Parts: sequence; structure tokens; C-alpha cells
Amino acid sequence: MNLEELQKKVIEFRDARDWEQYHNPKDLAISLSLEAAELLEVFQWKNPEEVETVKGDPEGRRRVKEELGDVLIYALNMCHAFGFDPSEVILSKLQINEQKYPVEWAKGSARKYNDV
Amino acid sequence: MNLEELQKKVIEFRDARDWEQYHNPKDLAISLSLEAAELLEVFQWKNPEEVETVKGDPEGRRRVKEELGDVLIYALNMCHAFGFDPSEVILSKLQINEQKYPVEWAKGSARKYNDV
Amino acid sequence: MNLEELQKKVIEFRDARDWEQYHNPKDLAISLSLEAAELLEVFQWKNPEEVETVKGDPEGRRRVKEELGDVLIYALNMCHAFGFDPSEVILSKLQINEQKYPVEWAKGSARKYNDV
Amino acid sequence: MNLEELQKKVIEFRDARDWEQYHNPKDLAISLSLEAAELLEVFQWKNPEEVETVKGDPEGRRRVKEELGDVLIYALNMCHAFGFDPSEVILSKLQINEQKYPVEWAKGSARKYNDV
Repeated sequence: MNLEELQKKVIEFRDARDWEQYHNPKDLAISLSLEAAELLEVFQWKNPEEVETVKGDPEGRRRVKEELGDVLIYALNMCHAFGFDPSEVILSKLQINEQKYPVEWAKGSARKYNDV
Repeated sequence: MNLEELQKKVIEFRDARDWEQYHNPKDLAISLSLEAAELLEVFQWKNPEEVETVKGDPEGRRRVKEELGDVLIYALNMCHAFGFDPSEVILSKLQINEQKYPVEWAKGSARKYNDV
Repeated sequence: MNLEELQKKVIEFRDARDWEQYHNPKDLAISLSLEAAELLEVFQWKNPEEVETVKGDPEGRRRVKEELGDVLIYALNMCHAFGFDPSEVILSKLQINEQKYPVEWAKGSARKYNDV
Repeated sequence: MNLEELQKKVIEFRDARDWEQYHNPKDLAISLSLEAAELLEVFQWKNPEEVETVKGDPEGRRRVKEELGDVLIYALNMCHAFGFDPSEVILSKLQINEQKYPVEWAKGSARKYNDV
């Protein structure tokens, strides 16, 4: 589906409830950060094997999907608050990352991924 | 732009660098959370008036746009790790929220937004 | 109370439950971050006046106190995992900050606190 | 060292710089959360073996110690904003946790730690 149409639905949801008044950038950033924490909580204390089993667990999948939904919805609200086209936000960051992490460098065996 | 095409570009970027091996759900959730923190950092210590001025400040806009890009890219990577269609993730969460926060209730003057 | 005695109680609590096996630094850092998010959640969507009223609200005070307790307990666990004396951790960071933010500079009227 | 004396030093540092005006509970909670994220960043993308090596790595130890210092300093500032005795905050949360996670239950082999 078109990302701009999805954003339009997100903003319609907000406006139907008169919530624009609360959606200043600082509180949107706080809320995005809290939803990201709820997503992370699904994996708290889990070792690598347990992390993989979440992918096949219906309750785990439901939680991940809902928290990801909240993250994406707040991200689209934030794009709207700044007048950013969300597709362009993604494409321009991919371009920046391409310069920062060239393919040949990234594949270099001497490098540690966490040097990124 | 189509969200599924954007996700395809995000995954191509990852695969060109052999990074799938690092993209387990727990580390993706950590990274999403760290990018959300960097977005929030833009507004740290700012009062409501200062928060609004970020919208018109070129350096502030650049930072917000880049951090939002990182958040969206990690969210699309996470959707991919679980085989979720990102459009459907957004639409189904909007539906859940519609039931949780009906329009008439949300507009009720006696309610505080932070009861949400 | 002596901070080292408090840390000893925290570690006794952990050991009575055989929880040392779960307390690797990465999961401790995740948990500390999740508790910090729960503390922040108390203030989500609140404007500056509403934030102040939390100080006089019994339920708000209870939540803040409990989340602060979790943050401090995980911080003491993390100090223990690295063999750090928690008093020294605080004192040495205060010294670093004194050099970074000299009193005369910090009081300068031309400076914005968020330049810190 | 006595935790109340440490808190006194933290507050003297703040007052020497006229920073009380910025230390409302919401911004303190944001800052605590951002410092917790910087602590977590030390372990981003690291597998369990790599996480352990941080304990013996001078640069890793320095980063962990400094970020823990920031977390503890903000936590003491927040206790002060609410008039909480930080020792009592820790002791009362340990008591709550003792009721929530009795020793016999916690040691039960059928239980997963992440059910906590």
C-alpha cells in the first residue's frame, strides 16, 4: 500500500479525536521511544535460541506486531508534524547509509559489525 | 511510494552487506530503541516554545529526518524478520486503536489525553 | 545508608534466587533502559503544569518511587557485574562533569542549557 | 559512602550552575532514559561472548562506568525532586520484589526467568 495513503489514515484517526493539540514533537518522540521499549520488552532476558522461538509463537507475534504498529504510527505522525514525505525520509536515509557503509567495506572480514 | 517496495530496498541494502546474520529480533529491537532515543535527544531540555522552533530550524529538521529514517528502516527490517506486511501492521493497529479509543469517548471533555 | 551495604542487599536478593546466571551486562542494560521508560511513562503527554502536580499526587509518587527503585537496583547490579564501587562511579563522573561544565561557563547567560 | 552524602554532592553540583530551573521531573526522566540508552549502546550487536569481553576491555569499562555514573546522578536528582530518601527507595522496592518473587518460587525449575 502507498505510504502516503497510510499516513493520511493515521492523521484522519488523530483528527477525528481532536488529538492534534497533544501531538507536539517532544511528546511524539517520547511516545515513539516508549513503544520501542515495549517492543524490546518482548525479548527481555531471552537468550539467542529463545529469541528465535518468538517468531513461531502466536502470542509473541501478536505483541511484536502491535508494538511495531505503534512505532510506525508515531513515526508517521512525526513525519507529518515536520511536513516530511515518509517515503523520502526512508530513501534519503538509505542514501546516507550507502555512503557511510559502502558495500565493499561492509563485507570486509576484518571489520566488526558493531563498529558500524 | 509503495511501502512494500520501500521494504524491498531496505532488505536489498542489508543483503548487499551480508548483514542478515546480525539482524535477529532482539538486536533489531535494541537498535530501534536506540534510534528512538537519538530522536528524543533533539528535544531534551527544550520547553514547549523551543520544541516548536525545531520545526523551522534546518539543523534540527535534518537531525529529526535522519533519526526518523533510522527508526523506519529498523521497523521495516523487523517486519521482514517476522514476515509481516508493514501496511497490514499499520492498518490492523489502527483498527485495534479504533476500538480502544472510540471517537465519541476520545472527544469527551472530562477525559485527560494521558488517560489513553 | 551506606551505598555498598545497599548493593550487598541487592546482590543477596539476586543470589537467593539463583539469578546471577541471567544478569549478563547486555540484559542488565536492557532492563535498566526498560525501567527508565516506565519512569518516563508517568509523565507522557503531561504539560509542564501537570508534570508538577505529580509531585503531590499519591499514586504518581508511588509509581515514580517504584520505578526509581528498579532503576537504582539494576544500576547497582551492573556496577557489581563490572566490579565497580558505586560511590566511586558517582564521584568520578561528577569530577568529569566539573571539567566539562565549569561553574562560570554554566552560569553564562548566552548559553542554552541544551547545549550541554 | 553514604548515599545521602552522595546525593548532597549531586545537588551542590546542580545548584552551583543554577540548573534547578531545568530539572523538572519530565526532563529528568527523559535524560535518565537517554543515558540508559547510551549504556545499552555499548552492547549493541554484541553476541553473548562479545558481551563478556567488555568486562575486561579498558575502553568498554570506561564507557560503562561513565554512563552508569550519569544514570545514578539523574536518579539521585529525581529522588531529590520528589523528596525521596534514595536508600529508602531501594529498600522499599526490594521489599516489594520479595513479595512478588518469593525465593522458593523463583528457584522453581519449571519457571522461565522472563516470566518475571
